[in-house]
Amino acid sequence: MTDVTAGILLIGDELLSGRTKDTNLSTIAKWLEPLGVQVGEARIIADNADIIRQTVREFSDRFDYVFTTGGIGPTHDDITADCIAAAFNLSISERADAMDVLRTRYKEEELNAARRRMARIPDGASLIKNPVSKAPGFQTKNVFTMAGVPAIMKGMLADIEHRIKGGAKVYSRTVEAAGIGEGDAAQPLAEIEKKFDGVNIGSYPFFNADLHGVNFVVRGRDEAVLDVVEAELHQLVDRIGI
Amino acid sequence: MTDVTAGILLIGDELLSGRTKDTNLSTIAKWLEPLGVQVGEARIIADNADIIRQTVREFSDRFDYVFTTGGIGPTHDDITADCIAAAFNLSISERADAMDVLRTRYKEEELNAARRRMARIPDGASLIKNPVSKAPGFQTKNVFTMAGVPAIMKGMLADIEHRIKGGAKVYSRTVEAAGIGEGDAAQPLAEIEKKFDGVNIGSYPFFNADLHGVNFVVRGRDEAVLDVVEAELHQLVDRIGI
Repeated sequence: MTDVTAGILLIGDELLSGRTKDTNLSTIAKWLEPLGVQVGEARIIADNADIIRQTVREFSDRFDYVFTTGGIGPTHDDITADCIAAAFNLSISERADAMDVLRTRYKEEELNAARRRMARIPDGASLIKNPVSKAPGFQTKNVFTMAGVPAIMKGMLADIEHRIKGGAKVYSRTVEAAGIGEGDAAQPLAEIEKKFDGVNIGSYPFFNADLHGVNFVVRGRDEAVLDVVEAELHQLVDRIGI
Repeated sequence: MTDVTAGILLIGDELLSGRTKDTNLSTIAKWLEPLGVQVGEARIIADNADIIRQTVREFSDRFDYVFTTGGIGPTHDDITADCIAAAFNLSISERADAMDVLRTRYKEEELNAARRRMARIPDGASLIKNPVSKAPGFQTKNVFTMAGVPAIMKGMLADIEHRIKGGAKVYSRTVEAAGIGEGDAAQPLAEIEKKFDGVNIGSYPFFNADLHGVNFVVRGRDEAVLDVVEAELHQLVDRIGI
């Protein structure tokens, strides 16, 4: 079975300045895992029309699904919808269905030019419900365009789930090895990985205030095989541990 | 004065699985700001040799400086050093200077094949000191290769600072507008931005448990101009606020 993959585009100058720490990548990745979709790459890009347009096009070709976050609000720096339209040579206009959604939140006199921009949706795109603040996201081909505010983004995922056709699930097991040096485990670890087809073992050292060690993370599609690998890792830890 | 820019590559399957949340981007971006270097783009990529090699090459051409984190430990999934060498067609081998550094931490009998891999450094690269766990990072042309563990990465930045030639600093001011709707501020905000050359205003809505509002972030090179813009934003907030 071939992998089903996703690319994630996190859009916003504030993420690149370091002022705002992204949490959306982790939320989307964890939500995709049980659906059988692996994140292949994520990019954090500036509020720059050329870059957004080119990256959307590249990712749409490279991955089965693309998720974008950020840049769909009412202000002048919210340019994502126009960039998505440009990426696919679609026209874009204020759409009646999106205006109807905005009217469930805003009174007519509140719907100024700025707020009406949130109803600008590329032609042919389908709307994504926003249970938090109403202004919708939208799907254009295999690209899902969502808000950047984490609570709103999370809310939108609920209206995306039924549109995803995932592949075989990838399962994972974590074996924590406190007090073990990564360098002592490296060779036996590589040998274990080599023995099992379709299994990937990652090694992640950690350093807490009073503890160091390694987390071994085993990933693969066959849970029975993962059971065996996990048992071997526990034996390895017992053998070289303190 | 032209911008001095950086690209950041965060390497590791665990970041893409969502299990590990990256904090290195924010650390590097905030550290670069006072040096007069802006982060242009960041990518989170898998432990995949082709992708790492291609992305390093692309970023090295596109940005003044490139920072990579992750993949320089002793295990089989630590392939960053070899990929950097391949990106620049450099040979790579166990280097005596790097072995000397490892010997300040490890006894001779601890320096097994796995740990010696941490002394594999591309030809011509200069070492970057690691004050936490000794195994060095390295600089190849305009690319700085660092560890992924946040505490070690932070430690390595101290030995990079003197190698950076930054541009004009970008300053920023934040005006918090509690209780204000982004859509009410959007038009006057765009007008303020238009009035001032070289000033960029971002608008970032927030939703806390009992508070919603917007943060306006003004960025620019001239602090005197920023003072004026900041004052105008405070007037705007007073005018449309609750």
